[in-house]
Amino acid sequence: MKLPKALAFDVFGTVVDWHQSIAREARSFVANHLPGVSAERFALEWRMLYQPAMQRCRSGDRPFVPLDELHHEMLLELLEQYNLPASRFEPSTLHGLSSAWRRLDPWPDVPLGLSRLRTHLPVVTLSNANVSLMVAMNRFNGLQWDAILGAELAKAYKPQPTAYLATAGALGLPPQELCLVACHHSDLAAARACGLQTAYVDRPLEYGGAPAPDASSQQAWDWQAESLIDLADQFERAAAKIHDGG
Amino acid sequence: MKLPKALAFDVFGTVVDWHQSIAREARSFVANHLPGVSAERFALEWRMLYQPAMQRCRSGDRPFVPLDELHHEMLLELLEQYNLPASRFEPSTLHGLSSAWRRLDPWPDVPLGLSRLRTHLPVVTLSNANVSLMVAMNRFNGLQWDAILGAELAKAYKPQPTAYLATAGALGLPPQELCLVACHHSDLAAARACGLQTAYVDRPLEYGGAPAPDASSQQAWDWQAESLIDLADQFERAAAKIHDGG
Repeated sequence: MKLPKALAFDVFGTVVDWHQSIAREARSFVANHLPGVSAERFALEWRMLYQPAMQRCRSGDRPFVPLDELHHEMLLELLEQYNLPASRFEPSTLHGLSSAWRRLDPWPDVPLGLSRLRTHLPVVTLSNANVSLMVAMNRFNGLQWDAILGAELAKAYKPQPTAYLATAGALGLPPQELCLVACHHSDLAAARACGLQTAYVDRPLEYGGAPAPDASSQQAWDWQAESLIDLADQFERAAAKIHDGG
Repeated sequence: MKLPKALAFDVFGTVVDWHQSIAREARSFVANHLPGVSAERFALEWRMLYQPAMQRCRSGDRPFVPLDELHHEMLLELLEQYNLPASRFEPSTLHGLSSAWRRLDPWPDVPLGLSRLRTHLPVVTLSNANVSLMVAMNRFNGLQWDAILGAELAKAYKPQPTAYLATAGALGLPPQELCLVACHHSDLAAARACGLQTAYVDRPLEYGGAPAPDASSQQAWDWQAESLIDLADQFERAAAKIHDGG
């Protein structure tokens, strides 16, 4: 097992706790307009429209559009489901709410784990988030990357192979030398099919404790960690072993 | 004059002193193989092949290739001019030398100036450097950006309009809200033609004190600064004035 030359991170769920952050950002809107609905449920329902929204771009039904726009369309769709037409709101209220996806907090292990990993090798994003969303989120939560790569660069949403291969290409690496870090088995499976190394990070609270929808894609991944600090520990031990000729 | 929403930086010359850095990196090679030639002259001659090399991509004579590859081809061409065929060297020697463009030092005002500017607004690269070159250079010299954008994203070398427009697009900004920061009048003129704001930073030592080749493109730019610290001062004064309703 060779050490990778760079790490590429999934972001929603792996790096940031979208569920609690969106619930926080949506709480007052939900309390005002959807009595009896919890902000946590609203966050889960919003996220459930994510894969279908991207699927329309993946399938070619529509051209690639940045995730910020999909988040907004998904919000309008969700409000429709609740019989709350968009016309009832100021456009700025709805845009302010959909930009909640730019204000997500990292899991507690992330700031230290990420900065430790970055001392060893380049660490980039390989997210479905568009560049301006990622830039805004990083400025909100203080995380720092070597580059923002992923879906928008490739004009293709994960798990389309181009998203992984364009990221490796931009780093000047063959896929085998890039490792995807993700908490989603489905994402890792697609990356492995493209030749990337794979590192699984467990995020049992991504859906507020409910089971993840992709358990059936589980495999034995190249790396398996409980946090980014654990992953940094494992990389450091593996590097020391290689260095010692072990 | 509205403040820009983000800054996009030219890198070679504006941020890093390629001339002295390449001279340093090439010094022992030049001393060993080109007696009587100074490393500073070698650096200037290498850089003189830069515009013609990119022009073959701009004109469509060849597809877009990353700048790392052009730097290597330019090195082989320069050695040919000195009657030093590449076959006389180990490939690793020549690749090590052409990767010198990944090991460039910033001008002394850059670390502080850049980090001050980043506290106010997103700051990205809009360079002809490819992503992996920029990532390596940042890891070498410690500079930190909000995103690595520019030529490779657009698959077009500056001053082609796409390079500027794709960078604004990735930031989700109309060109008028993005400001190019550069020490080259020609680069700023192309950015202005695309609608970008323009900030000139004077780098009188870029060519070791020799005059810059693009003096004829000089115009009155939106901002004009002697260093990035001066630029940060000017932005802060302008922001305070707007804030005071002045």
